[in-house]
Parts: sequence; structure tokens; C-alpha cells
Amino acid sequence: MIEADKLMINANVLAMDTEFHKFFPGAIAISGDIILAVGLEEEILQKYSSLEVIDCQGKTLMPGLVNAHTHVPMTLLRGLADDLRLDVWLMGYMMPVEREFVSPEFVYLGTRLACAERIRSGITTFADMYYFEDSVAQATAEAGMRAVCSQTVMKFPTPDAASYEESLAMARDFIKKWKGHPLIVPSVAPHAPYTCTPEILRATADLAVEFDVPLHIHLSETALEVENMRKDQGMPVIPYVKKQSIFEAKVLAAHCVHIDEGEMRTLKHANSGVAHNPSSNLKLASGIAPVKRMIELGLNVGIGTDGPASNNDLDMFEEMRLAGFLAKGSSGDPTALPARTTLLMATRMGAQALHIGEITGSLEPGKRADLILVNTKLLHNSPHFQHDPQSSYAQIIYASKATDVCDVMINGKWVMRNRELLTLNEEELLEQAQIYAHKIDMFLMQREESVLSKLIAVGGALEEESFEVQVKVRIKDREEVHLALRKSNIQILRSKHYRQYDTYFKFPDASQGYLRYREDNSVDEKGEVSGVRSRLTLIGQAFEYHFPQEVMLWRSRYFAPASQTLRFYREYFKPSGEHEIEKDRLRFMVSYKGTELYINIDEVKKPSLGYFLEIKSRTWSRKDAEDKSRLVLELIELLGVSSAEPLAKDYVEMG
Amino acid sequence: MIEADKLMINANVLAMDTEFHKFFPGAIAISGDIILAVGLEEEILQKYSSLEVIDCQGKTLMPGLVNAHTHVPMTLLRGLADDLRLDVWLMGYMMPVEREFVSPEFVYLGTRLACAERIRSGITTFADMYYFEDSVAQATAEAGMRAVCSQTVMKFPTPDAASYEESLAMARDFIKKWKGHPLIVPSVAPHAPYTCTPEILRATADLAVEFDVPLHIHLSETALEVENMRKDQGMPVIPYVKKQSIFEAKVLAAHCVHIDEGEMRTLKHANSGVAHNPSSNLKLASGIAPVKRMIELGLNVGIGTDGPASNNDLDMFEEMRLAGFLAKGSSGDPTALPARTTLLMATRMGAQALHIGEITGSLEPGKRADLILVNTKLLHNSPHFQHDPQSSYAQIIYASKATDVCDVMINGKWVMRNRELLTLNEEELLEQAQIYAHKIDMFLMQREESVLSKLIAVGGALEEESFEVQVKVRIKDREEVHLALRKSNIQILRSKHYRQYDTYFKFPDASQGYLRYREDNSVDEKGEVSGVRSRLTLIGQAFEYHFPQEVMLWRSRYFAPASQTLRFYREYFKPSGEHEIEKDRLRFMVSYKGTELYINIDEVKKPSLGYFLEIKSRTWSRKDAEDKSRLVLELIELLGVSSAEPLAKDYVEMG
Repeated sequence: MIEADKLMINANVLAMDTEFHKFFPGAIAISGDIILAVGLEEEILQKYSSLEVIDCQGKTLMPGLVNAHTHVPMTLLRGLADDLRLDVWLMGYMMPVEREFVSPEFVYLGTRLACAERIRSGITTFADMYYFEDSVAQATAEAGMRAVCSQTVMKFPTPDAASYEESLAMARDFIKKWKGHPLIVPSVAPHAPYTCTPEILRATADLAVEFDVPLHIHLSETALEVENMRKDQGMPVIPYVKKQSIFEAKVLAAHCVHIDEGEMRTLKHANSGVAHNPSSNLKLASGIAPVKRMIELGLNVGIGTDGPASNNDLDMFEEMRLAGFLAKGSSGDPTALPARTTLLMATRMGAQALHIGEITGSLEPGKRADLILVNTKLLHNSPHFQHDPQSSYAQIIYASKATDVCDVMINGKWVMRNRELLTLNEEELLEQAQIYAHKIDMFLMQREESVLSKLIAVGGALEEESFEVQVKVRIKDREEVHLALRKSNIQILRSKHYRQYDTYFKFPDASQGYLRYREDNSVDEKGEVSGVRSRLTLIGQAFEYHFPQEVMLWRSRYFAPASQTLRFYREYFKPSGEHEIEKDRLRFMVSYKGTELYINIDEVKKPSLGYFLEIKSRTWSRKDAEDKSRLVLELIELLGVSSAEPLAKDYVEMG
Repeated sequence: MIEADKLMINANVLAMDTEFHKFFPGAIAISGDIILAVGLEEEILQKYSSLEVIDCQGKTLMPGLVNAHTHVPMTLLRGLADDLRLDVWLMGYMMPVEREFVSPEFVYLGTRLACAERIRSGITTFADMYYFEDSVAQATAEAGMRAVCSQTVMKFPTPDAASYEESLAMARDFIKKWKGHPLIVPSVAPHAPYTCTPEILRATADLAVEFDVPLHIHLSETALEVENMRKDQGMPVIPYVKKQSIFEAKVLAAHCVHIDEGEMRTLKHANSGVAHNPSSNLKLASGIAPVKRMIELGLNVGIGTDGPASNNDLDMFEEMRLAGFLAKGSSGDPTALPARTTLLMATRMGAQALHIGEITGSLEPGKRADLILVNTKLLHNSPHFQHDPQSSYAQIIYASKATDVCDVMINGKWVMRNRELLTLNEEELLEQAQIYAHKIDMFLMQREESVLSKLIAVGGALEEESFEVQVKVRIKDREEVHLALRKSNIQILRSKHYRQYDTYFKFPDASQGYLRYREDNSVDEKGEVSGVRSRLTLIGQAFEYHFPQEVMLWRSRYFAPASQTLRFYREYFKPSGEHEIEKDRLRFMVSYKGTELYINIDEVKKPSLGYFLEIKSRTWSRKDAEDKSRLVLELIELLGVSSAEPLAKDYVEMG
């Protein structure tokens, strides 16, 4: 008799090995962190004995689930913002909050929260990608979970690094520190082709090869990503990253929603793993990955939950079920991805996708003891049929719930028994998480208080506030005024011809002012558009001052480059109303008596308001404004339109 | 102070009324089966008092979920067969098992099992369609659940009726018996346009109108259904059923996966409810219903689980989540079906789809007290954000699980408290269900033992077994033999020209014989195909007998009309190999010395085997076979091919 540390008997064993062995009543013998034997109870008991014999009471004993792609610390951002378009969600909410809050402490707490949720739902191994990955690894190891932990590198500043060189150095240190750990496989994650330079892709691949660790990357998540790549590089995403040598490394490619047959073959040839994230891909409307075909081609496809901020949970049972359903529904073939294949993706094949298939993913002698017990005899999973050998798999995929997982062992150690967590204090974690949520709530509520603070949150480099004096008069003929200007002694420093397309967002609280999205098309002498730029201007409420003889306006303005689309700003700022103004503008920067001013000779085409002359100058004080208003009046005289009635309104207020 | 029977306080109330009121801390006052008031705890406590005050401990209090379409007794068939095409699943498994097992007892038990599962997952109301609906209603009322129970009517014999007249009479009795019940709304269910005649559709609509009860029907579930309808009736499904007057009744239309904008408008105009079943539609690869557009057009769309044999559970939380995800993923718009809308579909709008919106679906004074408490403070649903008023809905849709439902009240009565069922004995139900599953297993395992019993299970009217003597010789020229036949004194009773396309299924156990799927194309004198028919023949192993001078064959044959497609039989019988034979056959029924025989003059084209003469006759005894073998040899002589070597093989055995 061979002495084992633990014997588990009376189990319905799904080994998920290459022969798909099933044993009932089955048993498993474990020594330390290693599986000694799996088989029929009778046979195991003839060969092995142990002081600790666990009666599994007919529960299903199977390998722990492998969550192939996620960003675990984002548990702390779960439910922060939903039902939004990817860019609004990411750049309007996730990134500003991450910039403000992500720290080693945040990451450590978020990871522990995630580990608790994962263990509860039968996950024993996951592949993570985030910032401060050292804290992720620390929390994961302490919780007793297995993970491929990937330190993010990208071309932008991140919460943990001001430059890509810095994060690459962090990744190197991180890998050195954790390489060889019994639970943690360190890895490097160039975030995505569109957030990395070719140099970053090559440098991270070199690093992964040097230490023989996996390289974790987002590839072809959205159609837009592929479209942009084709436009910029003349090829889709997979050939492009191949050109940057990333397939020299052991790649784990997350998403792969929009890849063609040739790209699948490239991934297969490179022995890359793929992480399929059905919930996230649907919720963010990225699309449906061609999983059925990938499996047919022999790719190792795992299943991932993606981050809990876009899912919104870490439930692999939901994810498996959805993966199966979606492959059937999208291919029109209900026999696609049968239950056993789906479970394989979430276990052995998932581990292979993470490049740790030799140590986990199935119940086989020599592999680490990563296993779970599932109660498949509950109400929602009854009755049981025996006539079809596939029905044990169908039960798990189509009817089991995460809450049916009773016990979880990782690396030979129990981390949950009878649904009680052994390595984490749930109460304490929930309390700490709520404190963070409250802080984030405060941050967002303050931001939402004013259009200006929301603008600052997404604007990146925002230009300074400025005030402006302005006079506007209706004119009959643009050419006449233009001629008068050319003939006058006003010195023209610069002149430009624009077509301007303005969208004004209005808000219920008028004191917030307007937000203007302007697209400036500069027009050359031939009348052709020679350049396009967009910018945002937050225009404060107008204050009218009655300077000598004339009405002048004085209002605050904030400028920001409009790096996002009009649609983005619409969904982000949620204006209560919108107005469009189109105009043709002759713009002159002039010097008059040593002062710089702007003269606009406009035709407002939409709505059709006619012709206008505007004279404007930035200002900074009441005194300066008074001085400039005098100059403005002199200019009006000079241009021969002094009899016109000045208008105290912006175009948007006329209509 | 007004005295209430029950006061529930300290709840996070989502009223799901037309203003989408939320109250925290909120309260509800209940008298008997009726909601008296819903509001802020402070206000409710100023007006109402009660001897029973329940502290909800901050849990979410919301209307119970409405499962808009299902076949509840099929809990007993959950997991019976998965990952199959709709026809194989339905006609290969579900219908044969239903024919054998469905009885009032089966239905009663299955419904109680379903009620237990539903209550556990927060469902208070459902719409059912099945056989012996009186037993469904009985079990539902005893469990204290609310339901629209629909008695099925169709043109085929059903487990509960030999003819449609009989089931229509059952439906009338059923409606009379249950009309006015506080929990049960009886209804009639013409199963689907393709399983009903126009008369059935009209008669059931008349019945529904006569008693002012809903009419429940499957409409446009698959693309094939629509395609067939267009072919047969020159219009899609909705106009067709409109022509049969079904919209005179209050219709609940299940599925509506393949309907166009015009059909949506017809449904809207008729005030029809729609039941969207995302899991079932994906799992059976029927497609994705255009739910986003239906909601935009103002249709009342509810969410249903469909039967547990095609889902495989009755979990409305999974269903809501999937409905939301799928609308986003399929429309490419992540803002489609925001969480609040999805929850609305599963509550108030679902009740409206069932035509019982005036009594349930939201927490409003005057409505019945159908409500649930959900713990939204568990690990997988933490932390909580307050900055976005939509986040309470997002929590329920994207992160809550059925197992988070703690308490359920229906019609003012508790049916679950602290996850303990009060009206059903779970243990007992599970035991009884397992007994049924065992019987069904035995039935299916016996059936699967032989190809013949599987053939009988799906064959409907199977023809009798027959034996055959047969001789076959290779010939050089078909015309020569044909001429010899015409010139001989053999009396030709009938002659036919066929092109025959045969597919032979082989099985690992050779004693099972072959199963042949034959498509016979009869060819007229001009060489045009004048008719097509398909049939199945199970051909037993050949026994060779050496009659005087020649080898003869003798083997059993079973015939069945091939009402399904070749693909159906392939997936149903799962052959280990296939062979195709194509031939051109001149077939003669002849009389020779008072005995009827068949003469075939064949050209085997695929594989290209050449020309053959076959002479065959059915037989029933050794003696008769010996007599016939003598006649056959005489015929060979007469036809001038007696020198050819007889072949003891079918074409499929040559190749």
C-alpha cells in the first residue's frame, strides 16, 4: 500500500484528461501538491491508503476552472458604469478613476476580493493583466490561488509608471522576483497593438523569451482596431504583431474577436493560446469570436471573464454556458461546442492556452492537485439521466451554478470547504471595498457636479480659462466690410478662411454655460479644405457690460482639444439639448494701436441668419476690457458699420 | 393610522412602476393579497401600522420576476439530450419520450419541481404551455404561484388527446374550470402555425375571445418556419396567423425570432405580448430576436426561459443577463437594452405581455403583493456605487444570481423565507423525479440497443419485416437484356424507370445490418423526373444459401417512410460509416408461372461498377425460397445471361 496525504472517495470524477476518463464511484490520491492517482474508487483503495479519507458523497470531482483572461483588481470598479459605449466607458469612467485611485493598496485589496469570488465559483487558476502586478501576485499567493500574473506595459503613462521604459523595467524586476514560485507564473503584458509602439512589442517579446515566461496581450478585440490597423499598416492585427516578433514568445492572446482563417493559422502555428471572453465581448458590443472554427483548427482556446468592470462578475459557470450558447447561436449549428468541449476549454485547454498545461487543467497523476467538488444534485440540476455519456458534462455547462461549488483545493491545499473560505476574510474584504467605493463615488459625484469638472476629467491637457470682450453687428455685405478692412490702416497679422461646424450642448442648469464642439475646416485659395481640427470650448454665461455707447460681452471660456468623437462627448456629457451652427468665416488677426484683436466676417448658413461682423479680444481685467472696448468701437467706425445695432448674443442664442 | 397585515421596512425598493420609483430606506404595506402603499419608510410608517413588521435589512425589494414562456413539466426531461439539432432533439428524443411518459401524474410532478426551482430564483408568475394543463394549474395553485396556464391544441395526436377536437374540448373545459381563480389564468395554446390547421387557429382564437383569456402560441421561432410559410402561403408567419383571425384574441407570441418591421407593427397594433427566450434560441441555434427594435416600437416584450429541456434551467437571472448582453452584442450597440429596461421586461412589461399587467409586475398600490427580496451585498455583487441612479438596476441584471433571492411572496403569502420553501417539499420532489429519470433512462437505453428499435422510435408507421431471395449477375449490355425480357414469355405487370440515390449507414456492430436511406426519382418517357420519394430500409445481415447450382441471398428488411432529412437520420443514428450508391434502374414487376417477381436492370454510376441484372422476390419460408430460387434460375436462362457468375453481394458491399 502506498501512503497518500489525502484520499477523496465516492466522487463522480470527470478527469478531463486526453481520454476524458469518468469514474463513478471514483477516487483520487494526493501527496503534497501532486496527484498520485485517479480512478475507480475500488482500484484506488486497493493501492493507496491515507490517514485523511474524504467522502465526496457522490459530488462531481473535476479539475478547478481556469479563467483565461481578466483584470482582477477591477472588482473594486464593478458596477461603476454600465450600458455605455466602449470609449465613454473606458475614457470617461475607467481611466479617470484608475488615474486617481489605482495604487498598490487598491490592487492588493481588489485582488483579494477577486480571489474570494473566484474560489467561491470554482476557479483555481487565472491569467491576470493589470498595473502594480507585484501586488496582484502577492495577494494571489497569499490567497493560495494559481495565476499567470502579467505586468502591463504601454506607450502612455500608467498608474504605475510614467513611461514605457519604467514599466518595462518594472516587468523585468517583477519576473525575476516571482519566477519559480509554486503558484505564480510571472508574465509581461504589452497591453494591445494600438497602445504599444513596435519597439514595446519587440522589447516585451524579448523579455518573455529571455525568462521563458508567457506574453499576455489584447488582440483584435474590436472591428475598429482591425480597421485602423489595415488603414495604418496595410494588414490586419495578427500579421502586424507577428512582424514585431511577438510570436517568438509564448503568447496568450485575449479576445481575437475579429480574426480571419489565415490569422487563426498563424496563431496555431505559433502555439499561441487564445482567451475567449463572451460576456465582455457582448456587453461592450465588440462582437462574437469565431470559436467554433478556432477549435476545429486545433487552437488552444480558453474562456475568460475579462475584468469584473465589464462583465460584471467572475463567474466561470455563466461564462462557460454563454460560450457554448453563443457558438451555437452564432454559427447556426446547435451541435457546435458540445458541453464536453466547452468544459475542456475551461479546464485543460484553458491551462494549455496559459502555457501551464503541464501542471494543471486536468486530474492526472503528476499534475498539481487543483480540483473542485460540485453538487450536481440540487433542484435546478435534477433529475439525472444515465443513457447518454455526455450528460455529466451537459449538467455542468447548462444547469450548474457557481454557487453549487462546495469545495476547492489548489496545489494540494484546501482553500474552501463546505462553501467556507479558508484563506480570506470575506466580511473584512467587503467592508474595505465599500470604503473605496464611497471614495470613488465622491470623486465622480464632484466631477458630475459641473460640466467643467467632467471636461477636465477627460480633457487631458486642458487650456486655461480666458475671458473675452466681444461685439457683434449684423452687416449687409461681407465683401464691402472685407474691402473696408483691407483699405483701412488696420494692420492684418494673419488671415484665414474657415468653414466651421459647431454643435452646442445645453444643460438643464443654465449657469453651466454651453459646451461647444467645433470642427474647423480651413479652406485654401482654391476653395479646397486644407485642414481639419476639432476642439471643445466650454462657454460660460454671458455678462453684459454697458460700456460707453455700446453693449459688450464678457464671459469665461475653457478650451480643450477634442480628441474624441462628437458622439463620445454626447454620451459622456448627456446634454439636455443640442444646437447646430454652420458658418463660413473670414478670420483676421489684426494689430490696432499696438493691441491684438480678432475680426471675423461671417456668413451663418445653418440656421440661415445672414452676415455678421465680430470683433473680439481676450482680456483679463475690467480695466483692460474697458480699454479694449474703446478700440473695438473705433474699429467698427473704421469698417463703416457703426450705424448697425450691436447684438448681445452668440449665434446659438439667436435661431 | 391604517392597519396593514404586513409592513416590510428598511428595504432598497425598486418599484418598477411607470415612474421607476426607488425608495431607500423604503417600505411597503400589504393587506391580504393587495399592496396598500409603497414609499419611503418614514412616510409609510407615518400612515400605516401592523402587528407584523419585517425588517428587510437593506435588501433589494422588487416585484417578483415574470417568466413569459415555458413548458414547466419538462423539468423531468432536463438534460435528457443536449447539443443536438432541433429536429433530432425534438423528434428523436423529446417526442418519443413524451409519447411514452407524459401523463397527468408526470405533469403534476414536473410542475411542482418547476415551481420549487422558480420560487428559489425569484419567479412569482409564469406563462406555461403543455399537455394535461389542468394538472399544471393544480400543482401551480397548490404551490401558491401565479401563472397563465395554456392547454395545447395541435393537428397531431398529443399525449393528452387523440384528435384536435378532443384537445379543443379539453381546453374549453379547462378554461371554464379555472376562469376567475385568484392565481391561475387559464388560456388556450394552438401550438404553432406549422402544427395547426387554419381551422384550429380560428377555433382557438374564438375560444379565447369567448372567455376573454389569452392565446399562447409559438410564432416565427426558426428561419425554416418562415421560409416554409413563404413557400406554402406566399407570406411570412405573422400575416398568415392574422389572416386566421388569431389577433382577435389577446395573444402571447413566443419567440418571434424571425420577424420584420411590418410584422412587429402588426403585433403592436394587435397589442400582442412577445416572449423573448434568448437561451433557448441560442442553444437550439434558432437565432437572435430583434428585441431592441421591438422595444423601440413599443411592443410589450417579456423574457422567458422556455422549457427546461432546452435551456436547461428556469433561472430568470441568467435569462435577463443574457437578454441584455445579446441585444448589445447583436446590434453592435452597448447602450442597447440598458439594465433598467431589461429588468422592466422581466417584471411589469412581462406581466403586460401576459395580459395580466393590471394585477402584477410592479410594486404599486392596488396590485397583488407579488414580490421578492434579493441580497445585493454578497461578494459577487460588491462594492456598491451611488453616483449613478441606474446602478441598482445594473447590479440586479449584471451581477446578481438566482441564489441571491432570499424571500418570495406571491399574492400576499410567503412561499419562501430565508431560502426555505414553504409550500413544497424539495427532498421528496427530487426523489420522485429521479424515479422518473430512471424509467426514461431504461426506455432510451433499450431503444439505443439496436438500430431497429431506434428506427421504430422515430418511424411512426413502420412497415413489416420481410425476407427476400435475390440473385444478381453482371451483364455487358442493358439493352440486350431488356430486349430479351420484352421478347420472352415473361409477363410484365408494371415497369418503371428510376434514378436511385442511396446512402448506406454502417454500424460498428455488423449484426445490426445496414440502414439505407433511398431517394427514388421516377423518370418519365421524356427522361424528366416525375416524382421523388424517400424511404428507409434496415437491411439485415445476409445469409447465403447454396440452392441447386446457384448462390441465393436471404435477408430481413424493415421499411419506413423517410419523413425526415438524411441529415436528421445521420445525427440520430450516428453511423460509424457511410457509403453512397447512385444508379439508373429499369424495374419490372413480372409474373412468371403464376409467381410475382421483380427484375431490375441497373447501371451503377457511383461508384462506377457497370451493368447488372437483379431478380428478387419476397418470401416467407425456406420452402417458398427454394421454389422461388428455381424460378429465378429459369428466368436467368430465359434472359440469356446464365453463363454469368452470380454475385452474393449488395452493391454497397462491392465498391
